[in-house]
Amino acid sequence: MRFFTVMLFLVWTVLSAEPLASWRDDSPTKAAIVSFVAAVTDEKSPDYIPPQNRIAVFDNDGTTWCESPLYFQLLFSMDRVRRLAARHPEWKEQQPFKAVLENDMTALKAEGKRGLLKVLAAAHEGLDAEAFAAEVRRWLETAEHPRFHRPYRDLVYQPMLDLFRYLENHGFTVFIVSGGGIDFMRAYIPYRYAIPAWRVIGSYAKTVYRNGQVVQLPEQVFFDNAENKPVAIYRQIGVRPVFAGGNSDGDIPMLEYADGRKGRSFELLVHHTDAKREYAYNRQGRVGRLDKGLDLARARGWHPVDMEKEWKCVFAFEGTCR
Amino acid sequence: MRFFTVMLFLVWTVLSAEPLASWRDDSPTKAAIVSFVAAVTDEKSPDYIPPQNRIAVFDNDGTTWCESPLYFQLLFSMDRVRRLAARHPEWKEQQPFKAVLENDMTALKAEGKRGLLKVLAAAHEGLDAEAFAAEVRRWLETAEHPRFHRPYRDLVYQPMLDLFRYLENHGFTVFIVSGGGIDFMRAYIPYRYAIPAWRVIGSYAKTVYRNGQVVQLPEQVFFDNAENKPVAIYRQIGVRPVFAGGNSDGDIPMLEYADGRKGRSFELLVHHTDAKREYAYNRQGRVGRLDKGLDLARARGWHPVDMEKEWKCVFAFEGTCR
Repeated sequence: MRFFTVMLFLVWTVLSAEPLASWRDDSPTKAAIVSFVAAVTDEKSPDYIPPQNRIAVFDNDGTTWCESPLYFQLLFSMDRVRRLAARHPEWKEQQPFKAVLENDMTALKAEGKRGLLKVLAAAHEGLDAEAFAAEVRRWLETAEHPRFHRPYRDLVYQPMLDLFRYLENHGFTVFIVSGGGIDFMRAYIPYRYAIPAWRVIGSYAKTVYRNGQVVQLPEQVFFDNAENKPVAIYRQIGVRPVFAGGNSDGDIPMLEYADGRKGRSFELLVHHTDAKREYAYNRQGRVGRLDKGLDLARARGWHPVDMEKEWKCVFAFEGTCR
Repeated sequence: MRFFTVMLFLVWTVLSAEPLASWRDDSPTKAAIVSFVAAVTDEKSPDYIPPQNRIAVFDNDGTTWCESPLYFQLLFSMDRVRRLAARHPEWKEQQPFKAVLENDMTALKAEGKRGLLKVLAAAHEGLDAEAFAAEVRRWLETAEHPRFHRPYRDLVYQPMLDLFRYLENHGFTVFIVSGGGIDFMRAYIPYRYAIPAWRVIGSYAKTVYRNGQVVQLPEQVFFDNAENKPVAIYRQIGVRPVFAGGNSDGDIPMLEYADGRKGRSFELLVHHTDAKREYAYNRQGRVGRLDKGLDLARARGWHPVDMEKEWKCVFAFEGTCR
């Protein structure tokens, strides 16, 4: 009996949901998405793609949730460093930790990628995989974003979640393919985006198996960005995507990879044009620089999304999504 | 309308299938599986596991299909080398190719793991990813197994496929975690086992992205066996398994990893006891050696499956599965 109730509920949900409700009716990208999905799911269409090939990949930071003023994983890790500082008196004089403790962004930036990785690795100190995930969730639910004064978990783009559901309702399988660390992302994406852990692909540290436990060493071995995104897709998905979404030049190879398949594909670029509801940045972005990508979008028929003009809301808390 | 028909068909399929039909009614492993699944899917049970954690992982060679007289991927690669030999006159004098062309197993074995990898890599020559997959499928459907005189695609253990469907019908997500190469496995597993490409985890070569294409270099970088299996599970699944099945000592770390989780888990070892319908080997196996695993199974309450006594059939073509 319960089984039938669940089935009926599913049928009802699928049939009653307005597709892409948080996208404006006059959005050209929405029209293009709906037309693409109609063509590739129609068995009589020359563009038909069978379900096992309907792979959709999306970047995370700046594509699915906010990445300003800095990547949230970095903000989380800096908070962790501040909490751990009492155990590490030496950090007061040691970079990059000194910069974090003094909130000196110029000094932190001067430490470069190596410095950032040290901060990201320090966030794992003293926490096994489960404790780390719990700490990430606690932080996302309690720490406050400096501009929106909301917990970070609220800063997900509702139109992108609506897009994921729309694609899934049409037989697509959605993956997140991001430069973020897999542990950080897997702590919240399954719950927040309803995408299971094994469809979250990201950067990872060197990992070994010791005494029945998987242990990470403080050494990054795979940075899932730029040319590495197609490599990760090949290794972990094994099917060339037909739909790819990103927001920065680091996503270009992933979009090119989808674009290069035989047959139709859809490439989407979230363009941060909305200084009022979110942020406006592109060619000079401190994070998520979108420069070459904007030119490519024009040349190749990719779809830049004008957040200000095409989305009814950016975040659900605005109350204008439906 | 079509949607409702599909739904009704799904409901009918789930309700009418006899669970584990190819397992004998008096199989102790079958009884243990059914009891485990009942306990972990009952929300009122102290052993309840929510669906997102119902991860089941299975080895491939010797666990899900036959691995004798040699791993099928190696037999395929040796056939490819023979077909390519005309292009490579130098192979007549060059190991490991000379050994393959002369069918000299002793000489091939003397070339060790490096030699085997050269043969496996040579099989990819001149084929891009799609052409390689097509070639694998053609071979599996046309080449003949030396003992069974059947195409290799028929040499899948029907009781294991029935187990996968049984677990999936109870909310589990099934993954293959094997030492086989990902390209070889993904060419047939999605069709033959009904497990999508992204749930097939295996060994892979060094991969780069160049000019819009993912290109493999003839250099293995990850061998998905023994201690690397839990590492691959951590990276690609991100959830500790609750059900793990293997057949050789190389699967022990994966079974240990499942066994080490908090809460209940199930560990299964396919024990090759059936010289008549398949092969009988274990502690002295040339491939798929099961030595330490048999002792561990006893000590830890893992479940060895006696193929001869517990399975109605090994292969579907025997006609005794139902």
